[in-house]
Formats: sequence, C-alpha cells, structure tokens
Amino acid sequence: MVDITKANEQAVKQMMEARPILTGVAVARDVVPGMRDNLILHAGPPIGWARMSGPMRGAVIGGLIFEGLAKDEKEAVAMVEKGEVDFEPCHHHSSVGPMAGVTTASMMVYVLENETHGNKAYSNLNEGYGKVLRYGAFSKEIIEKLRWMNDVMGTMLADALAKSDGLDIRALLSESLHMGDEGHNRNKAGSILYTAKLAPLIAKVAEDAAAEAEVLQFLGDNALSVLNPVMAACKAMADAAHGVEGSTMVTTMARNGTDFGIRVSGLGEDWFTAPVEQPDGLYFPGYTSEDASGDIGDSTITETTGIGAFAMASAPAIVQFISGTPQDALKASLEMYEITVAEHSHFTIPNLEFRGTPVGIDIRKVVELGVVPRVNTGIAHKEAGVGQVGAGLVRPPIKIFEDAVLAYAKKYKL
Amino acid sequence: MVDITKANEQAVKQMMEARPILTGVAVARDVVPGMRDNLILHAGPPIGWARMSGPMRGAVIGGLIFEGLAKDEKEAVAMVEKGEVDFEPCHHHSSVGPMAGVTTASMMVYVLENETHGNKAYSNLNEGYGKVLRYGAFSKEIIEKLRWMNDVMGTMLADALAKSDGLDIRALLSESLHMGDEGHNRNKAGSILYTAKLAPLIAKVAEDAAAEAEVLQFLGDNALSVLNPVMAACKAMADAAHGVEGSTMVTTMARNGTDFGIRVSGLGEDWFTAPVEQPDGLYFPGYTSEDASGDIGDSTITETTGIGAFAMASAPAIVQFISGTPQDALKASLEMYEITVAEHSHFTIPNLEFRGTPVGIDIRKVVELGVVPRVNTGIAHKEAGVGQVGAGLVRPPIKIFEDAVLAYAKKYKL
Repeated sequence: MVDITKANEQAVKQMMEARPILTGVAVARDVVPGMRDNLILHAGPPIGWARMSGPMRGAVIGGLIFEGLAKDEKEAVAMVEKGEVDFEPCHHHSSVGPMAGVTTASMMVYVLENETHGNKAYSNLNEGYGKVLRYGAFSKEIIEKLRWMNDVMGTMLADALAKSDGLDIRALLSESLHMGDEGHNRNKAGSILYTAKLAPLIAKVAEDAAAEAEVLQFLGDNALSVLNPVMAACKAMADAAHGVEGSTMVTTMARNGTDFGIRVSGLGEDWFTAPVEQPDGLYFPGYTSEDASGDIGDSTITETTGIGAFAMASAPAIVQFISGTPQDALKASLEMYEITVAEHSHFTIPNLEFRGTPVGIDIRKVVELGVVPRVNTGIAHKEAGVGQVGAGLVRPPIKIFEDAVLAYAKKYKL
Repeated sequence: MVDITKANEQAVKQMMEARPILTGVAVARDVVPGMRDNLILHAGPPIGWARMSGPMRGAVIGGLIFEGLAKDEKEAVAMVEKGEVDFEPCHHHSSVGPMAGVTTASMMVYVLENETHGNKAYSNLNEGYGKVLRYGAFSKEIIEKLRWMNDVMGTMLADALAKSDGLDIRALLSESLHMGDEGHNRNKAGSILYTAKLAPLIAKVAEDAAAEAEVLQFLGDNALSVLNPVMAACKAMADAAHGVEGSTMVTTMARNGTDFGIRVSGLGEDWFTAPVEQPDGLYFPGYTSEDASGDIGDSTITETTGIGAFAMASAPAIVQFISGTPQDALKASLEMYEITVAEHSHFTIPNLEFRGTPVGIDIRKVVELGVVPRVNTGIAHKEAGVGQVGAGLVRPPIKIFEDAVLAYAKKYKL
C-alpha cells in the first residue's frame, strides 16, 4: 500500500530543495531539448490550431513571421493549415512561457540549472506590457522589438551571464517576497533586483554605451523583466518534484487559452484538462470582460511552486492592479494552506509572521474541500493581434482535479 | 488670535506638496551654503568638541584626515583643541547627514531641488554598512573608501545626473513604501530602484568599464544607497514647511549622540534639546547594549516628514533587523496618527488599506497624550573608531516637546 503522505513529503521536499540558478541565455534551437525549426512551443496542455484561442493564434502568426518562415498573417495561416508547423507544449520541452508562451527555434531563452538535482529549464525573454507577442499581437513594431530583444538584449545578457557565477533565482524570490512581490503578477521588486544584479555584469561586457543604456533602461522599466527567469526557475523546481511514486501533488498547472491542464507527480506524463474559466479583474481603459480571452499561460507554474496567488499576502499593493483589498490578499494565502502539503522553507510572508508560503497542491485536498487553487493572471484580448486588456484573478475548473483523483485511484488500485 | 489648526494645515500642505528632485552631485564647498575649508558639519543640534559623543569625535577625526588637514588622530585632535576647526549643524546649512553626519568641504554631496517651492537640500554619499565614518570609524581603509566614493563614484554620479532630468525622490519613496521599505532603516527596495534608475544614465557617461561595474555593484549591494538622497529630499520637504506663523508642527528632529533637538515651524530657528536616550534593538554578533552610543543622526528627518518609523506598517520585514514583530510594525504607524496633523497624500501604506502615512508631528498632541515620536535607527559604538554595532528603536525625550510648547505659549502669548 502506497504511503501518500510520505510520497508527498518527498515530492515537496524535492520542490523546495531545488535551487535554480540562471546560468545563461542562448538560442532555443541550441539548448531546448527537442527544439527544431518547424516546431512552435506554446503554453498549456497540448492543442492544435483548430481549437487554439485568438491570442495563441496571433502569437503563432507572429512567431512564424519572426522566424522568417512567413512574410505575413496570410502566409503564416496557410503554412499552419498545410500542416507544415508542429505544435507542442513548452512543458514537454523543459520550458515555460507566459500567456501564449510561443517560443520558436531562433528565439533566445533563459537557461536555468537546478543546482540540487541537475535538471534544466528554459523560458523566453519578457517583452514588457501592452501590445506584445505573448498576448497575441504581431504587428511590425512587435516583430522589430523581438529582433532587438534577441540581437541586442539577448546577446548582451548571454555575454554578461557567461562571465558570472549565475544568479540564484530562488534567493532573489525570497528577497522579493519581502518587498511586496508575489512573483507572478507583481514582480516589481524582483525585476529591479534583477536589473541591479545584472547591471555590473553588463557594464563589464557591453561594447556600445548607447545599446547598454537601452538594455538597462528596458530591464529596469519593465516590472516583469524577471517573470520569465522566475517561471523557468519554478519549472526547474516543479520538475524536480515530478515522478515521485504515489504522490498526489500537482507538478504542472498550465493553460492554453482553451483548456486548463494539470499533471501530478505520481501520475506520469498524463494531462488532466477541461475548458478554461474567464478571469475576473480590472480592465485597461477602453476594454471590458467582453473583450477577454479565456485563461491562458504557463505562468501558473508560480502558483504550482508556492508563489503567485499563494504568496499574495506578501503583496498587498497588487490589489491596485488585479482588484480586491489587501485583506483579500491575506485571505488568498490563508485559504491556500488548506489545499497544500507544506509551508515553504525558503519563501516566507512577513505579513503572516514570516510563515512559509503554502506549497504543493494536493489533488485530494482540492477535491475533498472543493477549494481550487487561486491564480493571479494577465488578461489577453480574445482576438489575435490585439494584446493585453487587463489583469485579475482566476481558478482552474475543479473537474481536472476530480479526474486526476480518479486516475490516481485507478493507477494505485485504491 | 492665531489659528493653530489652520497654520498646521498650511505647514503640512507645504511639506506634502514639496517635490524634491535629485538634480546633481557636487563638491560641498561649491554648493552647500556657507561651507568653508575649516568647517565640519555634523548631525543634530549644535555641539562643541567637549560634549561630543565617541562616534561623532571619530567621524570628525576621519573627516580631518580625509581633508588632508591632519595626518592622524593625534594631529586631528590637536587641531580641534587649538580651536582651528569650526563645528556647525548640517541643519544650519540646508543639509542632513546620517549618524555622525560629518560632512567636510571636499566631500561630494547630493543636490536636491524642491521643484514646488524652489529650496535646495544636501546630503553626503552613503558608505554602506559596518565600519564606516558616519559610525565613527576612521581607519586607513575607510579614508581610502571615502576617496574612491568621491573621486570615482561621486564623479560618475555627477556626470550621469548632469545628463538627466533628475530623479524624483518623492515618487521613488511612494513606490518603495509599496515594496516593504519604510524609508529610514529599511531602504532595500528604494536602493535598488535607485540603482536601476541610475544604471542607464551611468552607462551613457562611464568611460572605464571596470569602474562602471564597480560603482553599479556598490550601489546595488548597499541597501542604504538611497538613504542619503532620501534624507536630503526629506530635508527639502521639512524646510518647505518651516516658518509658518503659528504652526506647532515639528520641522526638525535630529540627534548628535549627546542631545536630541527639535525645531518647530512657528518658532523660528530655536532648538529645543535634552540628553538623548539609548536605542533598544538587535546587536551584531559580539556586541551588547553596553557598547552602544546614545541616539545619533539627522536621519530622523524621515520620521519628521512622515516616513521611517511612522511608515513602519509598510515594512513588516524590518523587524528582522530592528527587533519586534510585524504586528508591532502595524501598531507603530497606528500610534503615530495620534500625534500628527495629516495623512500623507503621496506616501501610502498598503497594509492599512492604502491610508496615507501619519505626517506632521504636533508638539501639542505629543505633550497632551504623552506619546513621543517613534524612531527607527542604527546603533553606533560609543567609542570613536569602531563603527556600527546594531539597529533598533528609540524615542526622543518628552522634555523637548514640553519646552517647545512653553516657548510657543510665550511667543504667541497664550
């Protein structure tokens, strides 16, 4: 008979002991396992073009234009419809991407190495707010910005990190959670910590002062600069906890705009999926919930590893961005203790007397209590080509946790 | 009959409307009003050598060595005893300095300009933690570091700021109070915000990559980098509120290690002083309260303008450094509402539902309620030459508020 408690203790221990170090930036083709020229990685569980949401389609179109495989939307769609493009989840390639999560072979990615267990994880570079590829926009300026990010910023980051001992992202998160971040939708402190740590490294390698100033300005002004290395760090922590025989702990939560999917440590590579919910939040001027796409992105890897909405008590100021009151932020974290297996040994919440964040979602507790994980999220426009329209709160459908419990009972003959 | 309420409303309005911009870094001799070669500015109310505390004496000795006026402690003390050195408070020269506050003619200082009312304020550069001049240490390495700060960092900051539109320090504080800072003893977020904002400006002017990297590293690693521009910004705000006829609002609180002094908006340039208290807090390994100097420094300019201990509810993590619990931090801010005249329109506290920080200490309320202002502070060793030994909490003696109330009654014939 499997000892579930013990298995979950082991899984969460591995998740917390994982120590992901940002060691480099490299072209996806060269480092992401299984990456190839006609492959597009996307957020969430597996999905084909036919069922893809508007923002994900927009990002795919932009990705093909960025790669030079298509010259415009029409050509891109034609390629896809002829079956010339393969789609696979980022999660199947040790990767994660925010929102659409579209990552193509030539894009530069962050390389995270889990010092404790040796596994690696990857994520693309963050574009900032507004009309950006990850929210489904693909205009000329966006493609040009992506090229600048790759050719100028990515190269500079790669050179800078190559001369460093790497940046300890778990330590950075521990610090930023004491500075009003929750690590998912609020990464203001983390992003400037990240910029301040990179600045001296960049100073040493940058050859062109104007380009250097531009990169430092971009990193410092973008309150989400650190989101992508943080997500890859969380992916490295989550993967370290995956595959523990008998564990009912969630190791993946991800959305593709159409389906919300989870995977469970003790249930192998199977996804449990159901249609996504609509986020509820605050909209940018000129937009309403009518404009919103369904829930999308791999960024729920943060909640999967005990930060994001789970650490919201650390980030009372976030309510100005996603709605609610500071009291709601406290309650969000408190509620998540009910469905998790541990309190994090590295991530603590000053407002809760330095209690560790709730970490390790137990599918049994979710189903027993009917309490599904909380998620903080950006909101994309439902149509391809538009971009971000707001930010708010969302939850996964409970059905995927029920299905996972049933699959667990079957596999472990309970 | 003077309308005290109206006068205080006017004074606090001027304090809150003041908008201090960091516009430059320059040599004190060239910009600080009344600065001269044989003058040493110090923290707190006026004091002569005979009554100076150990750490202030140490800083004076270091300042004379830094200036090249004395070659060692013995020569420095001899100069002072021969009456060759003048001592005046920073506060008499539109300036403020943390701890000993020693500022000499050749030292580089931050230049803050209050965009709203036109007044300027100044503060020296921050040396970081540990064995530093402002805590009374004056060894060879300390003098060398001061020279590097002046010649390399100060020059680079001056060049960088000269090419900018200046940095809005009030805006930076508004942001850092939402990132777990209180702006006095905890300036972690503010210091990296500051570093991230300076980095692109520095990149544009720095000629030597190694020096640039060194400066960026120093600014980013020092969690007090921004303290001195913040203090000068507070001084600019406090001075903007000074001299309102009939106002009972405090516009200066400062300590020289021997006496705690205050000045009041409606009471001209008179200081009200009494012996300082001993701070109560956490000591660095190897030190106890036996080693502590009395309360010292101009950094209480932060509490004077509604941040520091007054904004402690914003900074629950600070208790790890100065003692207490996050609940104590909340209570500290709540108590200060009882003795202040307004809630700040620019500085808000997420943990108190974005309530403005308590601002503008009313000497009447302090005396009526017997509640003296709270202060967060560093703790210096009582002897010259040692340095910082801890950090903690302290209060001014109530007598100085009582004396101010009596002087007010006399002046305004109440």
